[in-house]
Amino acid sequence: MRGANGARERWTTAAIGCAAHVLRGHGQVMLLGHAAAGAVFVAALFAAGWEFGTYALAGAAVGTATARLLGVARDRVESGAEGFNSCLFALCCAVLLGPARVSTALLACLGAVLVTVVTAAVTRLLRGWELPALTLPYCLLATATTLAAPAFTHVRPSAHGPAALPRAAAGADAPTAAELTRGFLGNVAQVFFLDGWLTGALLLAGVFLASRTAGLAACAGSATAVATAWALGAPAQRIADGSLGCNAVLVALALCGVFLRAGKAAVPYAVSGAVTATLVTPALEAFLAPSGGHALTWPFVLTTLTFLAASRSFPRLARLRHPVPEGDTAAAAGEAPPTGHPPAALSTPPGTAAA
Amino acid sequence: MRGANGARERWTTAAIGCAAHVLRGHGQVMLLGHAAAGAVFVAALFAAGWEFGTYALAGAAVGTATARLLGVARDRVESGAEGFNSCLFALCCAVLLGPARVSTALLACLGAVLVTVVTAAVTRLLRGWELPALTLPYCLLATATTLAAPAFTHVRPSAHGPAALPRAAAGADAPTAAELTRGFLGNVAQVFFLDGWLTGALLLAGVFLASRTAGLAACAGSATAVATAWALGAPAQRIADGSLGCNAVLVALALCGVFLRAGKAAVPYAVSGAVTATLVTPALEAFLAPSGGHALTWPFVLTTLTFLAASRSFPRLARLRHPVPEGDTAAAAGEAPPTGHPPAALSTPPGTAAA
Amino acid sequence: MRGANGARERWTTAAIGCAAHVLRGHGQVMLLGHAAAGAVFVAALFAAGWEFGTYALAGAAVGTATARLLGVARDRVESGAEGFNSCLFALCCAVLLGPARVSTALLACLGAVLVTVVTAAVTRLLRGWELPALTLPYCLLATATTLAAPAFTHVRPSAHGPAALPRAAAGADAPTAAELTRGFLGNVAQVFFLDGWLTGALLLAGVFLASRTAGLAACAGSATAVATAWALGAPAQRIADGSLGCNAVLVALALCGVFLRAGKAAVPYAVSGAVTATLVTPALEAFLAPSGGHALTWPFVLTTLTFLAASRSFPRLARLRHPVPEGDTAAAAGEAPPTGHPPAALSTPPGTAAA
Repeated sequence: MRGANGARERWTTAAIGCAAHVLRGHGQVMLLGHAAAGAVFVAALFAAGWEFGTYALAGAAVGTATARLLGVARDRVESGAEGFNSCLFALCCAVLLGPARVSTALLACLGAVLVTVVTAAVTRLLRGWELPALTLPYCLLATATTLAAPAFTHVRPSAHGPAALPRAAAGADAPTAAELTRGFLGNVAQVFFLDGWLTGALLLAGVFLASRTAGLAACAGSATAVATAWALGAPAQRIADGSLGCNAVLVALALCGVFLRAGKAAVPYAVSGAVTATLVTPALEAFLAPSGGHALTWPFVLTTLTFLAASRSFPRLARLRHPVPEGDTAAAAGEAPPTGHPPAALSTPPGTAAA
Repeated sequence: MRGANGARERWTTAAIGCAAHVLRGHGQVMLLGHAAAGAVFVAALFAAGWEFGTYALAGAAVGTATARLLGVARDRVESGAEGFNSCLFALCCAVLLGPARVSTALLACLGAVLVTVVTAAVTRLLRGWELPALTLPYCLLATATTLAAPAFTHVRPSAHGPAALPRAAAGADAPTAAELTRGFLGNVAQVFFLDGWLTGALLLAGVFLASRTAGLAACAGSATAVATAWALGAPAQRIADGSLGCNAVLVALALCGVFLRAGKAAVPYAVSGAVTATLVTPALEAFLAPSGGHALTWPFVLTTLTFLAASRSFPRLARLRHPVPEGDTAAAAGEAPPTGHPPAALSTPPGTAAA
Repeated sequence: MRGANGARERWTTAAIGCAAHVLRGHGQVMLLGHAAAGAVFVAALFAAGWEFGTYALAGAAVGTATARLLGVARDRVESGAEGFNSCLFALCCAVLLGPARVSTALLACLGAVLVTVVTAAVTRLLRGWELPALTLPYCLLATATTLAAPAFTHVRPSAHGPAALPRAAAGADAPTAAELTRGFLGNVAQVFFLDGWLTGALLLAGVFLASRTAGLAACAGSATAVATAWALGAPAQRIADGSLGCNAVLVALALCGVFLRAGKAAVPYAVSGAVTATLVTPALEAFLAPSGGHALTWPFVLTTLTFLAASRSFPRLARLRHPVPEGDTAAAAGEAPPTGHPPAALSTPPGTAAA
C-alpha cells in the first residue's frame, strides 16, 4: 500500500511539474515564465473558444515534450522556453487555417515538433551576439506554413489565395475615445490572436499577476502604440482592433523589465522601441502581402533584437542588461559556446523564470 | 624525345587532374565529391540536350579556374567545392534565359566568375557557426539574375515578366501510382533542372555509384517528399514533375551521410528535414513569385542550415557530426579564423571528398 | 571682458567643431570623412532645392547630436560616421513623402534619432566579421518607412500605394552619346537622390577635392555602370537618369581606396563589384516593387559587404585591407568585443577620416 501511495505521489508530482512547464510556456508568450499568469492566459483562450485553448495547450505540450525527448537542457524546458513558440504556432494554425479540420490539427502537431529544431538553430545562431531567440522560430515556421498553404488542397482548399498587393489606408476619420480604449486593450488581446477588449483586460490582469513592472510596461507599450498610430493617421478601425499595436506591447515588455532592468534610462528606450514596432508592423504587412503572408510577431522580433543589440553600445543602457544565467543547451551537449563568451540570456532571464 | 614524352605526360596528368576537379564539381551538386558520379551526371545532362551539358561543363570549368586564379585553397578546388555553384548557375541561365543566345552564354561566364567571390563571402560568414556554404552562393546570384533579367532587353526581350501573384492550387485529383513513381524519380532529375523519370533513374544510379548510403538517403528523401506532398494534397501534376521534391532529396543526402554520419538517430532527423523542405518549397515559390523569382535550391539551403545548426544542441545528433578538416581558405590567406574555432567542415567532409 | 571673450572663443570653437562633424557626415555619404567635400555636397543639395539641403543638414545634425547624447564613442561622432545615415534618411523622406508637409519633417526627425539605434545594432552584428555598417541602417529604416507610409493617412494620403508587380523593360533603342554622358554624371547625382548632369559634375568635383584616388574610383564605377547597362540592353532613359548606376559608384569608391587600398589588384576587383551592383540594382527593385519599396542603396550595401567578406579569402586582396583603427563604440561601453578580435574598420578607415 505504501509503495503504491509513493508511486502515486511521484506521478502526481511529475504531472504537476509538467503542467507547470506547459503553463509557463503560455506565460513566455508574454515573456513571463510564470505558471499562474500562463493559467490566466489559457483561461482567456478558452473563453474566446475552446478550440483555441485546446490548440494552444496541445502545442505547448507537444513542443515541451519534443524538447525533453531531444535532450534540450532541463532548465530551458522547465522555464517554458521550449513551449511558447510551439504554442503560438498551433494557435496560428487554428486561426489562419480553421481549427475544425483534421489537416490543421496534424499540421499543428508537426509544426510544434519542428519548431523545437528551429528554436535550437536560432538560439545557436544568435548566441554569439548574446541575443535571445524570442518568437523568431515561430515566425519563421508560421510564415513558411502560411505561404505554402495555398499550394496544398488538403490544407487550404479555397480557390483564391490571400496574396494581394498592399493597398493604401482609406478614410481619415479621427478615432473616438471608445475606439482608442478598445485599441489599448485590443493590443494585448492580439498577442494571442484574440479580439475584444474584455479578453485584453483579462490578459493584462494576468501580466500584472506575474509582475507589477511587467503590467506597467505592457500598458506603456500599448498606450504608445495607440498614440503613434493616431498621430500618423491610421484608420480608426485598425487602431481599435489592436492589430497595429500588439507588437509594441511585447517590445515594451522586453525592453523594460525582461532583457533590460526597468529603470530611468530603460523607459524612454522602451517607448522608442514601441514607436518603432508600430511603424514596422504595416511595413512588414506590406512586405509579405503580395506573397500571402502576415506580419505575425515579426515586428516585435526585429525591433527587439535591434534595440537589444544596440543597447550595449550606449553606456547608460549597457549597465541595465541582466546578468547571464549559467545553464544552456550547449552546456548540455558538452561543448563550449562558439565565441568564447558566456551563453546568452535566452528568453528566460533569472528574474522572470521563477514562477 | 624523352623530354618531349615527359612534358606530354605531365600535361596529360595535369589535364586529367583538371578534368577530375571539374567532374567532382558536378558530383558536388549532389554533395558527392566523386568524379565518376560526376561523369554520370554530365552524361545525363548531355542526354537531355547537348546545350545543357555544355553549359554545366563550362560553368564548372570557369568557376574552378577562377578559384585557382584567385588563390583559393588547393584542397577546396580539387574536391570540386569551387565548381558546383558555378555549374548550377550556368545551367540555370541556360534553362531560364534560353541556351541559344549569346547574351546567355556571356552572362553564364560572368556569373561563374562572380560566384567564386560570393562563395568566399558566404563561406566566411557561415564559418563562425561551422556551417557549410552549400548552394547558397548559386541561389543568391541566380535569384539576382532572374529578378534583374526583365530590366535588360538583351537578356530577356519578352514583353511580360514572369512576375505574378501566387495562386492557390486547383484540382484535388489523387495521384495515380504511375504519377507517384514518376515523381519519385523526377525529384532526382529536377536537382539538375531536368525532366523525365529516365533521367532521374540515371542520376540516381550515379549517386549509388558514389556511395550506397548516399543512394539510399536520396531514395528516402524522394519518397518522403512524394508522401508529404500527397498527404497535404498537392496537385498530381506537381508531384509527378518533381519540382516539389528535389530539395528534399538534397536535404536527406546532407543530413544522412554527408554532414551527419548515417546512423539510427540521423534517419528520422533526415526524414524530418525532407518533410520540412517539401513544405518550404511552395512557401519560397510564393515568396518570390510576385518579384519574378524561383525557389531554386533555397529550400534545401535554408532547411539544411537550420537542421545542421540545431543538431549540435541535441546530444544524440551532436555526436554524429563529422570531424573538422584541417585546410581552409583562411589558412591559405595566412590568418586565423575569426572566432578562435577550427574552420568549419565546408561542403567537402573528409569521407566524401576522396573520389 | 577677457572672460567673455574666452567663453565666446570656446563657443565659436565648439560650433565650428560641430559644423565640421555634420559636414563630414555629408562627406561620408560618399565614404569620405572630409568636411570640405561635405560642404560641396551640401551646396549641390541647396542648388537642387533649399528643402533638400535643409532636410539633409537637419538629418545629419539630429543624428550626430543623438549619437553624442547616447554616449557613442567620440571618434565615431567626429568622423561623421554617425551623421550620414540620418542625413540620407531625412533626404529620402523629403524626396519620397514630399518635403513641404509637417508630418514628413517630424518623421524625418524621429527617423534620424532611431537610425542611431539601428546603426549601433548593425555595427555590433557585423563586427565579428570585421565588416562596416555602410548605409545598411538607413536602408533598413527607409525601407520600413516607405513600406509603412501607405498605411498612415497623415503620412501618405494618396489613394493608391506605389506597390506594383515589376514590369519588363520596353524599347531597345541604343542610347546616344549624350545619354551615356548624362548617365555617367547622373549616376553620381543619384547618390544624393538628385537629377541632372550639372549636379553630378559638382558632386564629382567634391569627391576629387577630398582625394584624387576617390575621384578616379568614382569615375571608374560610373563608367562601368554605364557600360554594363548598355551591354545588357537597359533602356536609354534608365541609363541617362543615373538610377541604375549610383550604387556602382559607391561600390567602386568602397573597394578601391576606402576599405581596400587602391592598387593593381583592387582595380579589377572594384570593377567587378561595380558590374555586380549594376545587375543587382534592378533585381532589388523587382524584389521590393510588389510591396511598394525602392532599391535605395541596398545594392551598394549587399555588393560591398559580399566583396569585402570575400576579399580576405584571396591572398592578393587580403593584403590590401586597411589596418584596424583603435577606438570603437565597444571600447566606450567598457567591454571587450564579442569575438576576441580587434574591432572592425567601420566606415571611417584612418586614411579618409582626417579631413
